[in-house]
Amino acid sequence: MPEYPTALGASTPTSITLLGHDLASEVMGEVGFGELAFWLATQRRPSPGETRVFEAVLAALADHGFTPTAIVTRLTYLSAPDSVQGALAAGLLGGGSRFLGVTEDCGRFLHEVVAAHDPLPSDDAGWDELALQTVRARREQRELIPGLGHHVHKDGDPRTPRLFEIAAEEGLLGPHLSLFAAIGRVHPAVLNRTLPLNGAGVCGAALADLGLPLELLRGFALLARTAGLIGQLAEELRRPVANEIFLSVDLNNKPIPPEPFPPGESHG
Amino acid sequence: MPEYPTALGASTPTSITLLGHDLASEVMGEVGFGELAFWLATQRRPSPGETRVFEAVLAALADHGFTPTAIVTRLTYLSAPDSVQGALAAGLLGGGSRFLGVTEDCGRFLHEVVAAHDPLPSDDAGWDELALQTVRARREQRELIPGLGHHVHKDGDPRTPRLFEIAAEEGLLGPHLSLFAAIGRVHPAVLNRTLPLNGAGVCGAALADLGLPLELLRGFALLARTAGLIGQLAEELRRPVANEIFLSVDLNNKPIPPEPFPPGESHG
Amino acid sequence: MPEYPTALGASTPTSITLLGHDLASEVMGEVGFGELAFWLATQRRPSPGETRVFEAVLAALADHGFTPTAIVTRLTYLSAPDSVQGALAAGLLGGGSRFLGVTEDCGRFLHEVVAAHDPLPSDDAGWDELALQTVRARREQRELIPGLGHHVHKDGDPRTPRLFEIAAEEGLLGPHLSLFAAIGRVHPAVLNRTLPLNGAGVCGAALADLGLPLELLRGFALLARTAGLIGQLAEELRRPVANEIFLSVDLNNKPIPPEPFPPGESHG
Amino acid sequence: MPEYPTALGASTPTSITLLGHDLASEVMGEVGFGELAFWLATQRRPSPGETRVFEAVLAALADHGFTPTAIVTRLTYLSAPDSVQGALAAGLLGGGSRFLGVTEDCGRFLHEVVAAHDPLPSDDAGWDELALQTVRARREQRELIPGLGHHVHKDGDPRTPRLFEIAAEEGLLGPHLSLFAAIGRVHPAVLNRTLPLNGAGVCGAALADLGLPLELLRGFALLARTAGLIGQLAEELRRPVANEIFLSVDLNNKPIPPEPFPPGESHG
Repeated sequence: MPEYPTALGASTPTSITLLGHDLASEVMGEVGFGELAFWLATQRRPSPGETRVFEAVLAALADHGFTPTAIVTRLTYLSAPDSVQGALAAGLLGGGSRFLGVTEDCGRFLHEVVAAHDPLPSDDAGWDELALQTVRARREQRELIPGLGHHVHKDGDPRTPRLFEIAAEEGLLGPHLSLFAAIGRVHPAVLNRTLPLNGAGVCGAALADLGLPLELLRGFALLARTAGLIGQLAEELRRPVANEIFLSVDLNNKPIPPEPFPPGESHG
Repeated sequence: MPEYPTALGASTPTSITLLGHDLASEVMGEVGFGELAFWLATQRRPSPGETRVFEAVLAALADHGFTPTAIVTRLTYLSAPDSVQGALAAGLLGGGSRFLGVTEDCGRFLHEVVAAHDPLPSDDAGWDELALQTVRARREQRELIPGLGHHVHKDGDPRTPRLFEIAAEEGLLGPHLSLFAAIGRVHPAVLNRTLPLNGAGVCGAALADLGLPLELLRGFALLARTAGLIGQLAEELRRPVANEIFLSVDLNNKPIPPEPFPPGESHG
Repeated sequence: MPEYPTALGASTPTSITLLGHDLASEVMGEVGFGELAFWLATQRRPSPGETRVFEAVLAALADHGFTPTAIVTRLTYLSAPDSVQGALAAGLLGGGSRFLGVTEDCGRFLHEVVAAHDPLPSDDAGWDELALQTVRARREQRELIPGLGHHVHKDGDPRTPRLFEIAAEEGLLGPHLSLFAAIGRVHPAVLNRTLPLNGAGVCGAALADLGLPLELLRGFALLARTAGLIGQLAEELRRPVANEIFLSVDLNNKPIPPEPFPPGESHG
Repeated sequence: MPEYPTALGASTPTSITLLGHDLASEVMGEVGFGELAFWLATQRRPSPGETRVFEAVLAALADHGFTPTAIVTRLTYLSAPDSVQGALAAGLLGGGSRFLGVTEDCGRFLHEVVAAHDPLPSDDAGWDELALQTVRARREQRELIPGLGHHVHKDGDPRTPRLFEIAAEEGLLGPHLSLFAAIGRVHPAVLNRTLPLNGAGVCGAALADLGLPLELLRGFALLARTAGLIGQLAEELRRPVANEIFLSVDLNNKPIPPEPFPPGESHG
């Protein structure tokens, strides 16, 4: 028979362990939820400073109002109120490349640069030089810089300086955040316009500096969003808007004739 | 045009608010993730004691090892590694009536009793009397008592006394937990056997005592499980087992002839 | 080692079987998709008449325009265009008790009555009598009759007479459809108003008459809807509306102060 | 107010239209389900030959026994039997890059080559020459050829010649299938070994030849699989295996110590 190793939850008739610790006496009442989520993902207990930066990231990503994911969760609950799990899962499925994906894209992008440079710069001038090379290379390949630009916060995303500040307070301003900050300083000289470092991007940089697995950076954005979507459902229960959203679309549908694809072909 | 009211996330070009507070200065770095999840769901900021009880519940529910939900998340990631959101959503979809549902069922069941009694008992003897009525009534209707019994922890679920202890330390041992404890004391006299109060049930009682919306109790179990499923994915990345699980099933498939449904009917 | 019996797909290095038949030579090119779906669900091959009724049901349920499920699939694709499977899955998650559920509810409701009566009526007068008892009993218990009433097609759902007609043409007008028709005739005398037999309800009756498993009637509605949701995505690719739907909500959000739950309590 | 154009479902109090046709009189009972799915995706009605090829593809992809997606659907239903939609959605979420993705990858790959060559070859020798260039170019870029190779059907996937045959019978052996066949003939000379053209790949080629939107080829595989997953649920209801699968994993879990990530770092 195959065996399936795991360091996560395990139980015997008289005890339950999680991450090698007794769940009841060592985890419950002792470990905060953000701390536990970090611990589960890395199998190492974070320091209080790491937990604070991590929870600041989760706060930054938890809810952005009527995003597609929030609308989807509310509409799914309207349609299938028997399944809270379905409404939450549907909302999370919007956490892909376009909306929540920036966090992961930015963390991976920064990590590629950081991992390719040894030794890393030791001062702002060195980071600026590396950032300049990086921005130029992306521009030559006509690729966007992940984390740069925001459709609403054009003159600055308020989450960005705050997360730098918190990371600095905790002594956790590592290479990914340093490079991201430098990109913020140097990109106008290359791109000929000044774009804000956005909140999703700085969150990806901070998560990478915390040593979290890059393949799962999107997962932390989804964890944060799960809390936000529960908030959306709780508000929907008391101040429902989903039916009005549905009707605003359905009542404004405009029937048009079919448009055969590929164009010009039809057996109908 | 319709308007869509919300007290959750909102933004202007220069600011982002969440729950009426400035996200950057008042939430990030100031509010833990469990605290924020509670706040989002109730639109009121919990006290430190409420947060501790809430986070103890989340810790109790975060991961139970190789549950169906954990296996599902790992298998889905094996099959579709391009979509972390899909793997997490698939796992959460198992959070229904049988596994994660006990938390919500127990909270709702206790609340029905509590809401129907005014005034509520003021001492253990009073709670025992109410619990006795309740257990007898369920038994007469041949209905199970949610939260009673566990297939592994037959002589006691270690999470249960610990959560009572934490709630008592924080002065948050309210009517739902009181009734649940009394059910634990009196049920053997009615059922002629002694069953443990299980962890999922005590979590439901504690969440109900915290004043969280009963319709969403399952949602908090799902939030906890999201952190656990990220842990499962992180472990799968380093110690993969999903392919072996898949093969252990696929290689042991046993082809059998079709069995027509309804029996006896076949046009084949 | 455990063994896992199945009559569905199986393969050896040189052959693939499905339902005990050679997939390549006996199924591909020989069996239509509706026919195959029926066969997979019942493990018996349907007759041409059964297939025609089944496919008529699927056609009736495939797409109803801008339903919540359609909007959800489009919004999820907007947000996560990397995952077609996520967009389809999100849409299907709205197939619950309220929208797609009527089909299953109606089939189960009719089956309960049919299964409890032996022998069943042999003429319209007999069905009317049974329908009258059934409608009266539901009314006394203040329960709705599944399948009765429609918010748009108040004077008659055009799918209903057509499905009766197709079933009659194929000699498949069985007890569930007979009872449903009789409910349509007799309910005005009990309810003092005339409601249409709706399309979702007649589909449930027809699926029950086809001998399909009642636990999965919702599943067939979801299969039909999967085809519809692919149509929605195909149209979204060429005539996108999801972003406009999103903006019509987001730009009309109205920030309001938090409303603590339960009312009156706040530690904030 | 914005308007939302659609050629799909629309209704008035007295009529329902789908794709510009009267649903009740022109679609129900007249249009098969595979035909309808094609029509919904392209907004043009397929010819009988196109429908036959399309349905042969759906048959080829509907069920492959105990795949991860099938196991996931069964486990999710075990855990949340209240939600058929959740069980189906969870299974579909495994339809990503690794398992169901080959169909789409192969169709897109072939289309890139076909779209870049005008005029296209007019005989087998011409196709072989183009295939040779294509295989060589992929090999130089160290990229795999989508659709080539199978872990079980090493000497030939039985679905492949059958689908070529059906397409030829219907006069629908177009450029994508022609190129794919040529790749099958020429690749041994470049790769120095003979690999089978697999069933998922030939399905992608056939779907591309049918003129279906390339962005949604995965969607058709998911439609086929939805029927298969309903079959899996129907069999699970009568011959349950999910609990045994779950226990075969859970009872063989092997607790191991946590392994901190990144290696060597731990605050625990």
